[in-house]
Amino acid sequence: MRRLWPLSSDTLSLSGGSRALWDRSPPLSVFLRQASQALFTGGDDRSAPPMAGADGAEAAIRRALAEKQAAVDSQAEAVREAKSRFGISHAEVDAAVETLKVLKVEHGAVARQLQSALNGGGNGARGREEFRQTVVNTLERRMFYTPSFKIYGGVAGLYDYGPNGCAIKNNVLSFWRQHFVLEENMLEVDCPCVTPEVVLQASGHVEKFTDLMVKDEKTGACHRADHLLKDFCKEKLEKGVTLSPEKAAELRHVIAVLDDLSAQELGAKIKEYGITAPDTKNPLSDPYPFNLMFQTSIGPAGHCPGYMRPETAQGIFVNFKDLYYYNGNRLPFAAAQIGQAFRNEISPRQGLLRVREFTLAEIEHFVDPEDKSHAKFSEVSELEFLMFPKEDQLTGKSAKKIILGKAVSEGTVNNETLGYFIGRVYLFLTQLGINKDRLRFRQHLPNEMAHYAADCWDAEIECSFGWIECVGIADRSAYDLRAHTEKSGVHLVAHEKFPEPREVEKLVVVPSKKELGLAFKGNQKMVVQALEAMSEAEALEMKAGLESKGEVEFQVCTLGKAVTLKKSMVSISREKKKEHQREFTPSVIEPSFGIGRIIYCLYEHSFYTRPSKVDNELLNVFGFSALVAPKKCTVLPLVKTDAFDRVAKAISRDLTKAGISNIIDITGTSIGKRYARTDEIGVPFAITVDSTTSVTIRERDSRQQIRVDAAEAALVVKELADGQSTWADVMWRYPTHTTPIADDE
Amino acid sequence: MRRLWPLSSDTLSLSGGSRALWDRSPPLSVFLRQASQALFTGGDDRSAPPMAGADGAEAAIRRALAEKQAAVDSQAEAVREAKSRFGISHAEVDAAVETLKVLKVEHGAVARQLQSALNGGGNGARGREEFRQTVVNTLERRMFYTPSFKIYGGVAGLYDYGPNGCAIKNNVLSFWRQHFVLEENMLEVDCPCVTPEVVLQASGHVEKFTDLMVKDEKTGACHRADHLLKDFCKEKLEKGVTLSPEKAAELRHVIAVLDDLSAQELGAKIKEYGITAPDTKNPLSDPYPFNLMFQTSIGPAGHCPGYMRPETAQGIFVNFKDLYYYNGNRLPFAAAQIGQAFRNEISPRQGLLRVREFTLAEIEHFVDPEDKSHAKFSEVSELEFLMFPKEDQLTGKSAKKIILGKAVSEGTVNNETLGYFIGRVYLFLTQLGINKDRLRFRQHLPNEMAHYAADCWDAEIECSFGWIECVGIADRSAYDLRAHTEKSGVHLVAHEKFPEPREVEKLVVVPSKKELGLAFKGNQKMVVQALEAMSEAEALEMKAGLESKGEVEFQVCTLGKAVTLKKSMVSISREKKKEHQREFTPSVIEPSFGIGRIIYCLYEHSFYTRPSKVDNELLNVFGFSALVAPKKCTVLPLVKTDAFDRVAKAISRDLTKAGISNIIDITGTSIGKRYARTDEIGVPFAITVDSTTSVTIRERDSRQQIRVDAAEAALVVKELADGQSTWADVMWRYPTHTTPIADDE
Repeated sequence: MRRLWPLSSDTLSLSGGSRALWDRSPPLSVFLRQASQALFTGGDDRSAPPMAGADGAEAAIRRALAEKQAAVDSQAEAVREAKSRFGISHAEVDAAVETLKVLKVEHGAVARQLQSALNGGGNGARGREEFRQTVVNTLERRMFYTPSFKIYGGVAGLYDYGPNGCAIKNNVLSFWRQHFVLEENMLEVDCPCVTPEVVLQASGHVEKFTDLMVKDEKTGACHRADHLLKDFCKEKLEKGVTLSPEKAAELRHVIAVLDDLSAQELGAKIKEYGITAPDTKNPLSDPYPFNLMFQTSIGPAGHCPGYMRPETAQGIFVNFKDLYYYNGNRLPFAAAQIGQAFRNEISPRQGLLRVREFTLAEIEHFVDPEDKSHAKFSEVSELEFLMFPKEDQLTGKSAKKIILGKAVSEGTVNNETLGYFIGRVYLFLTQLGINKDRLRFRQHLPNEMAHYAADCWDAEIECSFGWIECVGIADRSAYDLRAHTEKSGVHLVAHEKFPEPREVEKLVVVPSKKELGLAFKGNQKMVVQALEAMSEAEALEMKAGLESKGEVEFQVCTLGKAVTLKKSMVSISREKKKEHQREFTPSVIEPSFGIGRIIYCLYEHSFYTRPSKVDNELLNVFGFSALVAPKKCTVLPLVKTDAFDRVAKAISRDLTKAGISNIIDITGTSIGKRYARTDEIGVPFAITVDSTTSVTIRERDSRQQIRVDAAEAALVVKELADGQSTWADVMWRYPTHTTPIADDE
Repeated sequence: MRRLWPLSSDTLSLSGGSRALWDRSPPLSVFLRQASQALFTGGDDRSAPPMAGADGAEAAIRRALAEKQAAVDSQAEAVREAKSRFGISHAEVDAAVETLKVLKVEHGAVARQLQSALNGGGNGARGREEFRQTVVNTLERRMFYTPSFKIYGGVAGLYDYGPNGCAIKNNVLSFWRQHFVLEENMLEVDCPCVTPEVVLQASGHVEKFTDLMVKDEKTGACHRADHLLKDFCKEKLEKGVTLSPEKAAELRHVIAVLDDLSAQELGAKIKEYGITAPDTKNPLSDPYPFNLMFQTSIGPAGHCPGYMRPETAQGIFVNFKDLYYYNGNRLPFAAAQIGQAFRNEISPRQGLLRVREFTLAEIEHFVDPEDKSHAKFSEVSELEFLMFPKEDQLTGKSAKKIILGKAVSEGTVNNETLGYFIGRVYLFLTQLGINKDRLRFRQHLPNEMAHYAADCWDAEIECSFGWIECVGIADRSAYDLRAHTEKSGVHLVAHEKFPEPREVEKLVVVPSKKELGLAFKGNQKMVVQALEAMSEAEALEMKAGLESKGEVEFQVCTLGKAVTLKKSMVSISREKKKEHQREFTPSVIEPSFGIGRIIYCLYEHSFYTRPSKVDNELLNVFGFSALVAPKKCTVLPLVKTDAFDRVAKAISRDLTKAGISNIIDITGTSIGKRYARTDEIGVPFAITVDSTTSVTIRERDSRQQIRVDAAEAALVVKELADGQSTWADVMWRYPTHTTPIADDE
C-alpha cells in the first residue's frame, strides 16, 4: 500500500538546534482544528529518526547521574558505617555527612540538568505548553475553530472551522489554486468522497491502511498499541531520572523503531513491560490491525461495499487516461484535487493535529520516467533553505541551509521535477506566512519509504508540538498507475512517438497453448501467465536451458510449485521489429498538502502578544498577511454618533463592493478595546471614522496611522489588501496621523 | 423530519406557457455531473401540481379521439354490413368506404394531436432530447464531467468534475461567497461530513429520511416504488392513445398524488396495475422504507454509529449558541456553509441531476419570529420576475411576473426576510447567466410543506428535463433549534433585552414535592414534570378545580394514567414579576442551493451552436460570462513560429501573474479550428499573436476583434474579465481588427 507519511519527527524536545527558537522572547505559535489533518499514517506522534547528537548529550548526563548516584550510595554507606563504628570522633562523622551532603547536591544538580534536557531545555517544554494554551484559548474564544457537535458532547477528532477559521481556510485554498493550479495550468478535478471497494483494493488501502490496536480485555475500550508502548517509554525516560543509561538507550531504541515493529513484536514488548490499559489498568489483548477507513455501503442492496476516501489521489489516478487525452496525449502534466479525506483514527490525540476528517490538496504530476527534468526548474534553483537529507539524519547532524539547485545537481534530491516542487512548496508556505527558519525539508529515511518510491521529502514546520509534517513531496514512480492498470485491465500508459520508426530487437516468448494444455490441463493458464511475466534475463536463461537440456524446471508462483517445461511448449526467439513509439507507465511526483496542519502552524507562527499602552495587560495579535487574514479591514467610528455611523457604513459598503471582506464595529466600546479585538483576529487594517470628511487607516503591527479622504479609504485598503501597494508606499503618499495615547490601546 | 424539497414539477411537457421556449431556434441547454445534486427528497421526478388548464386540453383531445374512434368503428361496421348486403350498388359501398377513409384520416389527425400534446408539443420532446444529447456529448468530450471510477465500470450516481467543470464550480462558489457571505457579513462555517447518529435523530433524518423501496422477489434487485408506479402511469398515458378519458384522468391523478401515498397505498396500486420488476418481469415485494443516509461507524469500538450528512444545515444549528455569542448576542444574523452532502439513492436516474454525493451551499438566517422585517429589503423590492404562488398552481394558472415588493406587501410571500432572499437568489442566478425567462419562484403547496414551515419557495430553472428546483428558500420557523434543544438539553435560544424592565403577570405553578413524594413515591418526578409542562389554560382550569372541589384528576402522559391531585400538592397563583428580557427560539429562514443543479442548468442556458464560416458544420459554443468561464482567455499564435510562440508565452505569463486563468494553444491546427476549440469550452476572450509587437483580442460571441499592443494585452483582458470594462468599452478604445474569413471559423 502507499505509505503516506509514515514517520514523523517530534524531535524538538531533544534537538538543540531547534530548541533555541523556543527561547526567543515573544515567540510565535498556534492551534487550529485541521492542523489536525490527521492525514499522515504515522504522523507526528511516531518516533524521530535517532538524533545521535542530542542522544549523546543525554546519555552523557545519564552516565554522570549514575556515577553521582553511585558516589552518593557509597558515601551514605560510609556514613552509616562510621556512625556504627565504635570510638569514631564526631568530627569524622560530621565530615563524612558533609561530604554526603555535597554529593547529594551535586546529584540533584545533574538530575535537574537531565530533567531539563528531557523537557527540551530551560523554559522549553513549559514555555511551549503555555504558549500553545494562549494561542488555543484565543482561537477557541474567537471561534477560529470549535469541537464539532459540542452540544452533544462532541466527537473525538472532529472539529468545525468557525467563521474566522473558515475564512482563513478559503484564503489558503484560493492562494493554493493561484500558486499551483493556475501557475502550472494543472488540471483540477473534483471526485466524490464515497469510493467503491475495488479502487481501494487496487491502491492497497483495504489490505494495509491499518494501525495496530489493543483492546482493554474487560471494558473493550480500544487503544493504539504503538501509542501505549511509546507513552510508556517516554514516561519512563522523562520521569525516571534513576534510569540506567542502558535502560534509557533501550527505551529510546524502542521509540525509534516503533514504526517497524510487527504486531507480534509490539505485543511482546507490551507484555515484557507489563503495560496495561491506561485508565482501568486492565490487561490488554494482543495487538491486531484495525483498518482506518470509514466503511459504508453504496446503494440499497447492501452488496457494494464502499469507503470514505482516505486521500484524494486515487480519484486522479483512475482518471489518468482521460486526463492524458485531455492534455493532448502529452507529458508532463499535473492534475490536482482539493477535497475532504477521512481516517477513522483509533484514538485521536494532539487536538487539531490528528483528526478524523480533513482537507487535503494533492497534486499528481505525471512525467516520463526517463526524463524528469523540469522546464521551470531554473526559476527555483537559486532558493536556499533548510534541508535535512537522510545522510545528515543518520549521522546525527542537523538540518542545514542548502541551495536547491545544488541539492539536485549533487543528487541529494533525486530529480529536477521533485526539486521544482520542493522549491514551489517552500515559496507557497513562506508566502503564506510560515517562518522560513522554522520550516525544513526532511528526506525520508530508507525505512520510511515504500519500496517503489524513488525519493520523498516532507515539508516539516516547527510548532509547539515539535516538527510537524505538513506537505509530503514524493516521487512515487509508476506504482499507482500500474496498480490500477493491473486491477482494472485498463492500460494507464503514455506513448512517446518517435520522430522516425526505430528498429528494435525484442525477445519474444510464445507459449504453445496446445502443448501446455495437454500437459497441465486446468493449470495451463497459470503457466502461460508466468511465462509471459518473465523478465528478459529469465527468458534468456530458459531459452539456453531448453536448447541445451531440452527441458527446464519452471517455478510458477501462482501454483506454488515448479513444473517441467519441454522445448515444444514454448518458443523463445529474438525478433527485429519496427517501433513507431515507446509505451510506458508514467512516473508520478506527488506533493500532498495537509491544509489544516499548515493553517495550524500558520496560527502559531503568526501569533504574538504585546503590552497594552494603557494598562499592563498583554494583548493578543495574529500577524496574518492580508492574503490570509479572515477579514481585510475593520471599520470603526471613533465615537458613537449617527454621522460617524453613516460614514462607517458607507465605507463598509464600498469595501464590500470592491470584494474586500470587512467588519464594522459600531459598539460603544472604547477605540482601544476595539483595536485589540480586531488585532486579536488578525485583521491587518482598520479604518477609523473620526470626522465625516476624512478618516484614518491603521496598520495592525506597526500601529501607524495615515489620514485619507473618506471617499478614498476603501480604494486605499483595496490596494493594500491586494498587494498592489505596501504600507510603506501609502505612508509616503498620505499624511501620518498621530493618536493621543487614549485613542489607542 | 425536514421535508427538503419534496415535490417537483416536471410540468414542462404539458404546460403551454413554458413549452413555447423550446420552439425557439438555436435554444440553450446542458447536463453536468452535479446538476445531479440529488439533494431533493422528491425532486424532479415526482409529479407536478395538477395543471388544470393543460389537463383540460388533453382531456378534450382524448374525448374527441374517443368520439372519432367510435365513429370509425361504427362506419367500419356499416361498410362491412353494406358489403355483405345482397344487391347493394357498388357506388353505395364505395361511398361508405370513402366516408370510413375520411373518418380514419380525421382519427389519425386527432391521435397525432394527442401524441404531440403528450410530447410537449411539436418538436418539443424530441427537440429537447436532441439538444440535451448535443450538450451532454460536448460536456463529456471536453471533460466538464466524467462518470466516477469509470475504469472500474463506474458507480451509478457518482460523477467527477473534470478540469472545465471544476473551474466553473470554483467560480460559482466564489461568486456565491461574494454575493451572499461577504455582502451580508454571514458567518461561514465548515463542519465535518461524518455526523454522529444523535444529531440526525434530533433532526428527524434517522427516522424519516427514507424512500419507499420494492425488491424484485427473485433477484433481490431494488427499485423505488414511486418510480415504478409513475413510469407505469406515464407510459400508459404517453403510448395509450386509446385510453378512455376516465382512465387517463385516473392515471394522471395517481401521478399527482404520488408523493402523498403511504407504503400500503403504493403497494396496493402496484398490485392493482400488475406492475412487475422492470427488466426481469418478476413479482415485487411490498414497499418498505429505505433510509437514504450512508451509514458508517465512528471510532474502532463499533458502538458509535454515524452517517455521512444528508445536508449541511445541521452543522450550523448545533453551533447556534456559539454563533449567536460570536455575533454579540444580536439578531438577526446568518450563518452559511458550503460542503458535500450525501444521499444513498435507491436507483439514481436523470444522470447529473440526481446523484449520491453533491455540493450544497446553505444559509441559515436567524431572526426574531416577531420581527421578520429586513433592513435591506428595499434594495430588492423593485425586482420583477416570474413567480408562481400556490393559488395560481391550484387554479391551473401559469407563473407570472410579479414585483417582489408587492408580493410581500400583499402577503403572497410570508415576510420581508423571505422576500429579501428570494430577490437575492434571483440576482445571484441571473448574474451567473441563468435566463430570467426560464427561472421561476414556485411556492410550495400546503401538502408539500412541513407542518412547522411558515412559507417555502423554490427557485426552479427550466432545462431539458423540465422545471428543476435548484434553490429552496424556506421559512422553517423555530423547528430545528427546538428539536436540538429538546434532544441535547442545551437551550438554543435568543434574548431581547428590554430598554427598561417590564412588569408582567405570570401564572406560577409550584408543586409541593414533599406532598407529591408521599402520595406518588417513585412516580413523583413524572407528576412534577407534567405539572410544570402545563399550559396557562390548563393550569387555570386546575386552579379552579382545586379551589371548588379540593381535588382534581390529572392525566400524566408519561405514566399513561390519571392521578388524583389534592389542593396541598400544588400551589397555583398569579404573581407580578419584573422581566428584563424576553427569551425566545429564533426562526430560521433557509436558502439552500444545489450547486450542481445550478451549474447543470447554466450549461443548458449557455449552450448554443452556430454554423462554421468555412463549411456547413455546426460549431458548439458555451456562452459563459467571464465570471463563470473555466478559463478567461486563450492565447494563440496565428501560425507556428518561434517568435510568435515566445510572445504568446510571455502574454500567458502576464495573464497568470494577474490572476487571469488562461490556456495557450500552440498546436499547429488552423486558427479557425483553435477558435472553435476554445469557444466550445466557453472561453470568452482569445488573444491571437499575429505579430511580435501587436496582437488581437477576440470576443467569443460577437467574434469581433480589436488590436492592442502585445505588452498591453494581458491588462486589457484582465479589465474585461474582472468586469471593469465591457467589450463595448474596449471596442471604443482600440482599433477594430478585421480578419479574412479563412482566419476565422
